[in-house]
Amino acid sequence: MRFTINKNDFLKGLLIASHAISGRSPNPTLLCFKLEMTAKGLEITADNDDIAIWTLIPLVNGDKEIIRNYTFGSTLIVANLLTKAVQMMEGEEISLEVIDDRIAKIGDGKTDYSLNCQNAEEYPDIDLEKSGNIFSIPCNDLTKLVETTAFAALDKNTRPILMAINLRGEAGRLTATATDSARLSRKSIEIDPSIRFSANIPAKTLSEVVRLFEGCVDVEIAASEQKIIFSFANTIVKSRLIAGDYPVSNSIIPTNFNYRLNVSAPQLLSAISRVSILSTDRAAIVKLSMGPEGVSVSSSSDQNGSGAEEISSFHYEGERLEVAFNAMFVSQAIKAVVSDDVQMKFIGEMKPFVVVNPNDDSVVELITPIRTR
Amino acid sequence: MRFTINKNDFLKGLLIASHAISGRSPNPTLLCFKLEMTAKGLEITADNDDIAIWTLIPLVNGDKEIIRNYTFGSTLIVANLLTKAVQMMEGEEISLEVIDDRIAKIGDGKTDYSLNCQNAEEYPDIDLEKSGNIFSIPCNDLTKLVETTAFAALDKNTRPILMAINLRGEAGRLTATATDSARLSRKSIEIDPSIRFSANIPAKTLSEVVRLFEGCVDVEIAASEQKIIFSFANTIVKSRLIAGDYPVSNSIIPTNFNYRLNVSAPQLLSAISRVSILSTDRAAIVKLSMGPEGVSVSSSSDQNGSGAEEISSFHYEGERLEVAFNAMFVSQAIKAVVSDDVQMKFIGEMKPFVVVNPNDDSVVELITPIRTR
Repeated sequence: MRFTINKNDFLKGLLIASHAISGRSPNPTLLCFKLEMTAKGLEITADNDDIAIWTLIPLVNGDKEIIRNYTFGSTLIVANLLTKAVQMMEGEEISLEVIDDRIAKIGDGKTDYSLNCQNAEEYPDIDLEKSGNIFSIPCNDLTKLVETTAFAALDKNTRPILMAINLRGEAGRLTATATDSARLSRKSIEIDPSIRFSANIPAKTLSEVVRLFEGCVDVEIAASEQKIIFSFANTIVKSRLIAGDYPVSNSIIPTNFNYRLNVSAPQLLSAISRVSILSTDRAAIVKLSMGPEGVSVSSSSDQNGSGAEEISSFHYEGERLEVAFNAMFVSQAIKAVVSDDVQMKFIGEMKPFVVVNPNDDSVVELITPIRTR
Repeated sequence: MRFTINKNDFLKGLLIASHAISGRSPNPTLLCFKLEMTAKGLEITADNDDIAIWTLIPLVNGDKEIIRNYTFGSTLIVANLLTKAVQMMEGEEISLEVIDDRIAKIGDGKTDYSLNCQNAEEYPDIDLEKSGNIFSIPCNDLTKLVETTAFAALDKNTRPILMAINLRGEAGRLTATATDSARLSRKSIEIDPSIRFSANIPAKTLSEVVRLFEGCVDVEIAASEQKIIFSFANTIVKSRLIAGDYPVSNSIIPTNFNYRLNVSAPQLLSAISRVSILSTDRAAIVKLSMGPEGVSVSSSSDQNGSGAEEISSFHYEGERLEVAFNAMFVSQAIKAVVSDDVQMKFIGEMKPFVVVNPNDDSVVELITPIRTR
């Protein structure tokens, strides 16, 4: 195998595939990229068991020649080393030639690398075959579904299914849900009513996927029982799924409320951040006191003292109510509804409450209060 | 005690004093600022045993009133909490009032904090009396002395005296020296010939001190046996010294060399960084091969392979020579001499070599080679 390739295009492909490279792996082959020079161009594959990425650098891009002087073939090269080498070379073109399946000579005419490489037959087979429900949506829509929910997934392995975002196609809606069991975030978009599936995709993986969308318009999704495949531009990403039924029903979101607060999102966010410095809990606890006469945010600890701030810009319906909560949960929820005005709706002091955008019902944030006495 | 103070001036003072606040301390009093409202203004003191800082926020700055509506007094408030509270408040002025020596009420008219505080008598006495040799130098000069040497000090406590920068006034030169025993960095400036002292100041402390010089022209230094005091603008910093004789004599720098390489600093630096990615050692090892016919930089490992780069811009005097070294040591030395051209002078393959600026003999970098076979 041999090729001479535009440096920036080569680096872009390597950086895309890098998202499927872990720092460590019990299988050292998975620390390598598989490079294949074929009639289509340079194919780069990476896989870390959670996620597999295949990306193609085509021979030409419009009028621009990207790859020249090539012979077909394949090899495995340690991913981080190859990426760093290509990143650091300054030439516009980089040549790579594999000698005896053992050494890859890589250079830009100034720096010469001889990197150890392996026979590509050592690499595992990766099934990128599309099956199940296949449909396309704008990349932007998937990005919003993921960004609005990923933060609410569990970030430790105590209950694996809660580390997933549940993506469900049903009744003409594509809905993403994530919960760590103390709070839940959900967003949905419209979709073709024929699409019907439910997949639990690790939140971390989905966050990696949407980071690769730069410059892409649409993503094709193929969701089956065992795997989900995302195809966009010259890239295909496969994610493993977390088995089992997602433990959250549609009816978990309450619909009848006794108290309603409409408030300026930036004002509430900055008040929460200012008073939460008093909390000595690892997760800062903040209290929201609401009544017809005023709304305030406060926090206190025996060790540090107390802090309080009146909210000047609000509209409140209901009796007096005090609700205490994890400051980070509420701040993330307010940011997720992406609106200058947010509405908080309560049933009672110790019942889960919701945070919504009063002008957009596609996002719902549900949060369990904290008992403080 | 009570005062109303301009927020930005208050914050600036707190941030200066913060440099003497550690994250943890066996003595919780040292996690506090001492605030004293006196006829001079607001005095803020912080101390962490290594370094003590006193800074004054004056009542007025020229025509601008900084502090108003004050009564004298003093108190201790947890430093990180006070700094965060002041940082986060949005008002232009902040009022602070101490109630019963127990609670500091702090607010900007919008947010109200009640921070626990302590009687100032609990605070240790700090001796900021100047003694010994007292002299002034430009802040910039001290900054350069410290930045040129601090990186070469030992960063772990295996030999405490090597964690210091040795600052020595002798024969009309003020010389800073730091070494971790594998390399040494030294810079000197001219000074009044009457100044004669030697002080081992923790490199970390000195690096903190020079970071506080923003906007200052001159610093007054008072060096005695037990302590060193730096005074600039409205701030006084005291550092503890590390006892003992600094284990480096003036004669450690060799003066006769057999090989001389003049080379472009940016070219050598980037070649070193490109080839050092091959090294699997925690400290990357790079080899410099010099001869009349050419100069190259290379590195290799059994695991990764090898990398090499010819240097195009050089002038070399001497026989063929190969020297292997810690890539980081040489890169830091090249950067410390601050010149587009550097000169490297060698005695032989395994003898310490120097890196200098051919046009400025105030900086010398000495590095011990590494045996590679």
